Amino acid sequence: MANTLVEARRELALANRIVANEGIIDSFGHVSMRHPDHPNRYLLSRSRAPELVTPADFIEYDIESQPLRDPGVGQYSERVIHGEIYKARPEVNSVCHHHCPAFMPLLATGTDYVPIFHLGAVGGIRPPFWDQRDEFGDTNMLVIKPEEGASLARALGKHWMVLMMRHGVTVAGTSVRDCVFRSVFSARNAEYQVRSMSVGSNIASLSPGETHLAGQISAKTTGLTRSWEYWSMRVANKAGAAGSAKAAAKPVAKTAARKAKPARTKAKRATRKSRH
Amino acid sequence: MANTLVEARRELALANRIVANEGIIDSFGHVSMRHPDHPNRYLLSRSRAPELVTPADFIEYDIESQPLRDPGVGQYSERVIHGEIYKARPEVNSVCHHHCPAFMPLLATGTDYVPIFHLGAVGGIRPPFWDQRDEFGDTNMLVIKPEEGASLARALGKHWMVLMMRHGVTVAGTSVRDCVFRSVFSARNAEYQVRSMSVGSNIASLSPGETHLAGQISAKTTGLTRSWEYWSMRVANKAGAAGSAKAAAKPVAKTAARKAKPARTKAKRATRKSRH
Amino acid sequence: MANTLVEARRELALANRIVANEGIIDSFGHVSMRHPDHPNRYLLSRSRAPELVTPADFIEYDIESQPLRDPGVGQYSERVIHGEIYKARPEVNSVCHHHCPAFMPLLATGTDYVPIFHLGAVGGIRPPFWDQRDEFGDTNMLVIKPEEGASLARALGKHWMVLMMRHGVTVAGTSVRDCVFRSVFSARNAEYQVRSMSVGSNIASLSPGETHLAGQISAKTTGLTRSWEYWSMRVANKAGAAGSAKAAAKPVAKTAARKAKPARTKAKRATRKSRH
Amino acid sequence: MANTLVEARRELALANRIVANEGIIDSFGHVSMRHPDHPNRYLLSRSRAPELVTPADFIEYDIESQPLRDPGVGQYSERVIHGEIYKARPEVNSVCHHHCPAFMPLLATGTDYVPIFHLGAVGGIRPPFWDQRDEFGDTNMLVIKPEEGASLARALGKHWMVLMMRHGVTVAGTSVRDCVFRSVFSARNAEYQVRSMSVGSNIASLSPGETHLAGQISAKTTGLTRSWEYWSMRVANKAGAAGSAKAAAKPVAKTAARKAKPARTKAKRATRKSRH
Repeated sequence: MANTLVEARRELALANRIVANEGIIDSFGHVSMRHPDHPNRYLLSRSRAPELVTPADFIEYDIESQPLRDPGVGQYSERVIHGEIYKARPEVNSVCHHHCPAFMPLLATGTDYVPIFHLGAVGGIRPPFWDQRDEFGDTNMLVIKPEEGASLARALGKHWMVLMMRHGVTVAGTSVRDCVFRSVFSARNAEYQVRSMSVGSNIASLSPGETHLAGQISAKTTGLTRSWEYWSMRVANKAGAAGSAKAAAKPVAKTAARKAKPARTKAKRATRKSRH
Repeated sequence: MANTLVEARRELALANRIVANEGIIDSFGHVSMRHPDHPNRYLLSRSRAPELVTPADFIEYDIESQPLRDPGVGQYSERVIHGEIYKARPEVNSVCHHHCPAFMPLLATGTDYVPIFHLGAVGGIRPPFWDQRDEFGDTNMLVIKPEEGASLARALGKHWMVLMMRHGVTVAGTSVRDCVFRSVFSARNAEYQVRSMSVGSNIASLSPGETHLAGQISAKTTGLTRSWEYWSMRVANKAGAAGSAKAAAKPVAKTAARKAKPARTKAKRATRKSRH
Repeated sequence: MANTLVEARRELALANRIVANEGIIDSFGHVSMRHPDHPNRYLLSRSRAPELVTPADFIEYDIESQPLRDPGVGQYSERVIHGEIYKARPEVNSVCHHHCPAFMPLLATGTDYVPIFHLGAVGGIRPPFWDQRDEFGDTNMLVIKPEEGASLARALGKHWMVLMMRHGVTVAGTSVRDCVFRSVFSARNAEYQVRSMSVGSNIASLSPGETHLAGQISAKTTGLTRSWEYWSMRVANKAGAAGSAKAAAKPVAKTAARKAKPARTKAKRATRKSRH
Repeated sequence: MANTLVEARRELALANRIVANEGIIDSFGHVSMRHPDHPNRYLLSRSRAPELVTPADFIEYDIESQPLRDPGVGQYSERVIHGEIYKARPEVNSVCHHHCPAFMPLLATGTDYVPIFHLGAVGGIRPPFWDQRDEFGDTNMLVIKPEEGASLARALGKHWMVLMMRHGVTVAGTSVRDCVFRSVFSARNAEYQVRSMSVGSNIASLSPGETHLAGQISAKTTGLTRSWEYWSMRVANKAGAAGSAKAAAKPVAKTAARKAKPARTKAKRATRKSRH
């Protein structure tokens, strides 16, 4: 593997853990990135919870969301969300799909997202809604067919976020870090917006001008670097706290441990190494 | 003990810890399973908080909720909830009874549960309510008498969830994992539904068709495996973080430690073993 | 010291840590107990946050809330809350005063507490309100003078809980564990009640009969033992997770460490001992 | 460096960690202090998340918010908030700027802050609002230009807190501890106020007299010392739990670790030292 790809896989595994650790994603949802060397491919984890994803878990997909090699492991069923957006938007290099609790009240009531503080500008003013039922009738709500993914990508249009009625949110970014930044701060804004609506219906939105200018904070200030360092440390601290997991946990967690063997073996090796 | 029973006890202990760790249950509530070899028996922990339950804590009950042997320890008073549902529903192999905060606003106001996102479909559309007062007048609200359990089982009918006014929720599943999955995601949905109601009264429900299809996600995709791995790791990580409990905690926690001796002794033995 | 007193101090230290760990109390608030051998005395910690209290921190007060010996350390200013209730209510053996977030919406709006689930019965139906302003005009809201404490005790009357407008709550119990149980579950009920009120104004209260019967759950079932074991383990696990606190934390926390020396020295001694 | 400055840097690093740990600040926001020896200077961290700030991270600024020496590292862009308040208010020795979630509903709806319990008195009755748009039109909402900082300082006037519409809050204090105390308890009050507003619109405010008297609790009782000890221990415990961070976290966190090298190297050195 080229160095950039090694580095890319590390960055993407960390991105998955960050969005999980920040409460954007639980066992479902995923963050992908466009392949650093092949713009018509993308990297997405095998089917596992984002908080557990390691650099070795990523599968290479072509732009039609077919794996380049038989991965021999379970795959996410909703990968066309990623593939169809990479197809439609050449400037997008990372996609996050999630069902963050903060957004649920907007998605269940069809309430517009409104940026109520400067960092919420990353979501734009009134990003579009998409309802799978409109084109596809009754489904299990998962975006699985290529035409479902393409429909979602059309709804996204030139925006950075699309709200999926009775389902979740899909966020796009120019890089993995940009995508994570947008995912986290749009979720914070949604949470604050919903809380604000319990106080009064007269919510003060950023103006279009303010939204445009504040939307560039992550690109033009040290804010993105600072947040990334913060979120990374929080992931590392949490892993550190759990890292001393001893036998106490084993009796009941045996099944889980067995399932997660590849990752744990790696961790053990690293531990051993670090003792020398 | 047969291997399946050993495995079943492990799985059920983990299930109890998962629902506690995911905030569905605190010191009260319990998860049971039908005995893997004897369909007219079921396994339920002795009286202790689910987060502390170990494989050794389970008592075998017959279908009338009587212990097969004198357990010599305290028992849950509400075990007829489990027994009467196993009696009435042969396809049910696991039952969870809880008082999750997320449901309380529905239970205190008699508001129907509505699936507002795909994973909430596990609770069905408008699962039934049951009010102990209707048949039994003033009680301490605990479901203790066989006829109280039978009444609750009748209210459950063919559903997978029954809402108990001014009390809690009882969830049924075809397996322990199915029951845990339903318990967790119906609680998430209830939380999102309540939050949504603070934004607007016009909540968009999944259609009956969507509910039917999305209700099969756990059975037809890799979702259940992925969630179970995730929740198991969270339990293991938490135990790991606490596992390094040293003397610092002892002065004040001595009383607690003494009470919990059997479990701790076991943990110590496991630790010792794992060092060889 | 008599053995009962040693045990009582341990129990009371644990009680303080439990209410802190369960979110009832932060740096303010306190739990006291009537002296096990001298009913006209009570034990209350020196001035420090309840989560940090150790068995050595308790000061003996007479029924007029004067220390038996010059304690030589800072004291809580609100100790008359405890003394005046012990004076007025011989059957009360433990008092908890707190400012739990869950109650604040009731205290800020004068909304009656309503038991909305069985465990909420520990708070009674519509426990009384007390407003310091009524008798004492503008104060700093702290209950410091004996006549302020006596007024609060009169408002409490025969109840187990009194709601203090724009301030907090005071809970009484027949034992330390009973007092902690009432404090935790009345706070849970208040939280659920407030959430329920955002869904609809028609809250279903337990009936007087149900409240009476469910209010005896902690005395008549294994519930109190089970909860105490659970809460104790949560305290022990948290201390365990933090117990591995190494030098990493020291550079910035030095000031704090110095302030807390007595406790830490003790902890160190305990650690040393436990290694032999 | 003089001893007072060494001590001041330690205190300020701890203050930054406390406000982060108590949920007032995330990756953005900052706490500064007036230089202990040079009243026309102040100390503010280089650009990094407050939870990660160490005593070595502080940069000395003159009253015009220019660094005394080229710091050679990234700086916060909003430092004029601090400089202009130190210029306008000689009795202010510490400033905290934050975007605490608890305040967002007030800032998005223009709802007055009301002290609803005694500790909320630290924020005063109806502290002033400031809207950057009024004087400066569309901006990215960051307070970067000296005239923006001066305008904010004018709005603050003689108060201890100013609410910045669609942005955040700035708090002033007579000392670092006073500023932290005000920041934490005004945020708690804001949270309780917002929750109370979901129950009823008739919120009981402290009277002006009560606000005046209760606002002196931190200065006149042992409350500030007790809170500071509590918050410091919480920071130390969290660092302790994370302190056992082993190689397990490294594979995915490598990028982050590299970025944070200066701090980690320092931490290592401290660890080594403390072992002798």
